[in-house]
Amino acid sequence: MTDHTYDVVVIGAGPVGENLADRVIQGGLTAAIVERELVGGECSYWACMPTKALLRGTAALRAARQVPGVDVGGLDVAAVLRRRDSFASNWNDDGQVSWLDSAGIALYRGQGRIAGDRVVEVGGTMLTARHAVVVATGSSALVPDISGLRDVEPWTSREAAAASAVPGRLVIVGGGVVASEMATAYSSLGSTVTVLARDGVLHLAEPFVGERVVKSLEEAGVSVRIGAEVASVSRDGDGTVHVTQTDGEQLDADEILVAIGRTPNTQDIGVDLVGLKPGGWLTVDDTLRVVGDDGELIGDGWLYGAGDVNRRALLTHQGKYQARAVGDVIVARAKGEVVQDQRWGRHVATADERAVPQVVFTEPEVASVGLTAAAAEAAGLRTRVVDYDLAAVAGSALHAEGYQGHARMVVDEDRRVIVGFTLVGPDVAELIHAATIAVVGEVPLDRLWHAVPAFPTVSEVWLRLLEAYGR
Amino acid sequence: MTDHTYDVVVIGAGPVGENLADRVIQGGLTAAIVERELVGGECSYWACMPTKALLRGTAALRAARQVPGVDVGGLDVAAVLRRRDSFASNWNDDGQVSWLDSAGIALYRGQGRIAGDRVVEVGGTMLTARHAVVVATGSSALVPDISGLRDVEPWTSREAAAASAVPGRLVIVGGGVVASEMATAYSSLGSTVTVLARDGVLHLAEPFVGERVVKSLEEAGVSVRIGAEVASVSRDGDGTVHVTQTDGEQLDADEILVAIGRTPNTQDIGVDLVGLKPGGWLTVDDTLRVVGDDGELIGDGWLYGAGDVNRRALLTHQGKYQARAVGDVIVARAKGEVVQDQRWGRHVATADERAVPQVVFTEPEVASVGLTAAAAEAAGLRTRVVDYDLAAVAGSALHAEGYQGHARMVVDEDRRVIVGFTLVGPDVAELIHAATIAVVGEVPLDRLWHAVPAFPTVSEVWLRLLEAYGR
Repeated sequence: MTDHTYDVVVIGAGPVGENLADRVIQGGLTAAIVERELVGGECSYWACMPTKALLRGTAALRAARQVPGVDVGGLDVAAVLRRRDSFASNWNDDGQVSWLDSAGIALYRGQGRIAGDRVVEVGGTMLTARHAVVVATGSSALVPDISGLRDVEPWTSREAAAASAVPGRLVIVGGGVVASEMATAYSSLGSTVTVLARDGVLHLAEPFVGERVVKSLEEAGVSVRIGAEVASVSRDGDGTVHVTQTDGEQLDADEILVAIGRTPNTQDIGVDLVGLKPGGWLTVDDTLRVVGDDGELIGDGWLYGAGDVNRRALLTHQGKYQARAVGDVIVARAKGEVVQDQRWGRHVATADERAVPQVVFTEPEVASVGLTAAAAEAAGLRTRVVDYDLAAVAGSALHAEGYQGHARMVVDEDRRVIVGFTLVGPDVAELIHAATIAVVGEVPLDRLWHAVPAFPTVSEVWLRLLEAYGR
Repeated sequence: MTDHTYDVVVIGAGPVGENLADRVIQGGLTAAIVERELVGGECSYWACMPTKALLRGTAALRAARQVPGVDVGGLDVAAVLRRRDSFASNWNDDGQVSWLDSAGIALYRGQGRIAGDRVVEVGGTMLTARHAVVVATGSSALVPDISGLRDVEPWTSREAAAASAVPGRLVIVGGGVVASEMATAYSSLGSTVTVLARDGVLHLAEPFVGERVVKSLEEAGVSVRIGAEVASVSRDGDGTVHVTQTDGEQLDADEILVAIGRTPNTQDIGVDLVGLKPGGWLTVDDTLRVVGDDGELIGDGWLYGAGDVNRRALLTHQGKYQARAVGDVIVARAKGEVVQDQRWGRHVATADERAVPQVVFTEPEVASVGLTAAAAEAAGLRTRVVDYDLAAVAGSALHAEGYQGHARMVVDEDRRVIVGFTLVGPDVAELIHAATIAVVGEVPLDRLWHAVPAFPTVSEVWLRLLEAYGR
């Protein structure tokens, strides 16, 4: 019944599966990877890469416009879409397949399903894993049960990322990262955009983040309706989408983008065979082994769950981080080496808990790491919150006329270390890694006074925040 | 003979003097500051601020040009110069004077001179310092003894920063930061620029830095002549400058910018009265007290030297960093509090030794901190040098088509911490603070693996460097 045997079998060839298999190979084991769609996954074709390609022109244009003396025009939409196509590799995975091959990772195309202890079936072929099976199937857009919604074939993050034309009128349902970024992109590309954000815009971030992004979207002509809920949706014969809100208000649009959340890709992968509920998130232990409802390991711990499916941090970079830990711990266990599962050890994804960085490529950009002030308080930390107006930094004013932005640092007063950092402002994406190192490194504030920001950069906000905290 | 008494008297109201006096006041002491020119100093009117204003348009234009679909034209030189004027506060220090006033710092305008123990004379007024006199007079451009050079009234960094018109032909003597930045700025503003760089371009940085900046300057039409030395200079009646090189080659130009180094502003401040040589750099101890040739403190240690004059790190941000240490240690000593002069203590400028960050706003930008590979080796460290092609990072490609850049990390193998980091590439300025925190915080490599860069940012180079180092 078993056709092939590998040390490790990975279901899902997104960035997580790829990185994981690579670590396994580098550790001297063999690995196979199973993929039902394009090798490279969501990030490469329908998320990070194409959406950032859509957004980069907007950012570069805005940046140039904010410097007097620079002569700028508008955006050439066709050129932006062409560039996006190229960053999505024209939805062709030849390059990624070649990489798998060069890395020595076996590829099986098709739907992978757990077919027994350590066994994965794909298109009738049985793959047996000597040491571990890893589920790295990611997540998909959640389309809620709203009357008529599925019938109108709504856009999800995929269609928004890959669209070949810009709709005249776009209604976006949701207020998270996808909704905010796509509102930014499509308004810039010429759509009339309406955002229906029931729970607010970027409401899990520090409160000033959503306020600024909403203000900026509105200045760009986007209608943002906080609290709005959709009651029903229909589409005309001419293609017009009619959206009825719960308060009775009606909206017409050419497309509707649903961006209210994600659902794990565990529907068709045979998790029922090991006692788990298909379509549910996977619960994992510190080294990312899947546990059942009883909290016990599946089997003897041969099943791992990495990336979006474990719901720890639905971000490509965090999934890849987990992939490194999982790949290495599988190797360590296979070889009988010491498992480094202490806090910040090599085989655990400690940063998932309280040191997750995220950049939202809206205008202005949002970059954050760690806990918000509210989350830190909820976690029982004795904190002090330090705020600073990014526009008051010399480097910001030089960077852009009319620069508007804000920075917040959340300090754990008992340990005198930073546990959270949020920036909102034009082009702040590259500033957050400094905070990530400070949070992860648990660098004391007293020492951070010696980390001098170069003048005149926007990073001088670090000095300003320390000064505001007090010496 | 003494007209006024303060706890602290500072000679020089640049950023260093201002910050220092502010710390003194915040510590509960009184302070006077003496300034012979504009309050705000070199950085505000003739260096950092105006030069970055000159350069920002070039950077924004280049960034926009590197994104297909963004419609850009050229630079409006008059608008760039107007913006520069505004960032130099139109060479009016009213704003800074108001700030001194609001901070409670007394201002005396005129040439300050040490006139005795703890006494500074300014325009006939004697200022006595109860606790300390601080020399924070900065540095000036060094104009070498080249035949005819002074007679042609060459530009120095000041004139280059403050010029009201763009010369048709500009010869730049030197290859350091000023030379490189001004070659970038003036070529972009329309000058035909020739750089005569005897010792190379940015030759104190990692070798790949100068190579890339030279390549980029040449692509922008700048003629860069490494090894070239000037023998003599003259100016015609029509204003044309004739430059004769030591190899006999002649060059004509409309202006010549001398940017070969700095000389301390200690010529006219009465240091001879305490046994020091006028015009020399000040030697200081760990808490920045001036010592004589014999290594002994001046007097009982009442004389401090902060900023450029002590030659530790000729950078505004580093001078301000020293200012905080000096201001606070003067207060601590005055109050009989514990002096925290241990390594990384509050009262010492430990970062001056091995953790100085610097950004050079050329195209591409250069950002570095700590030791170069060569300097680390010379310091006797057992190092490993890790290189990575910045263009191979997904975030770089998204940021700009044809992105070219390079990153180097220098690891102290005995401590497994980073001691040096250099980036060269478009818009890398804000990336260096992460490295500064890593170097200053002495964050071990094992921990840095948990500092996950957000995808897709240029900062992902951190992950690539760690991968190149090996896990």
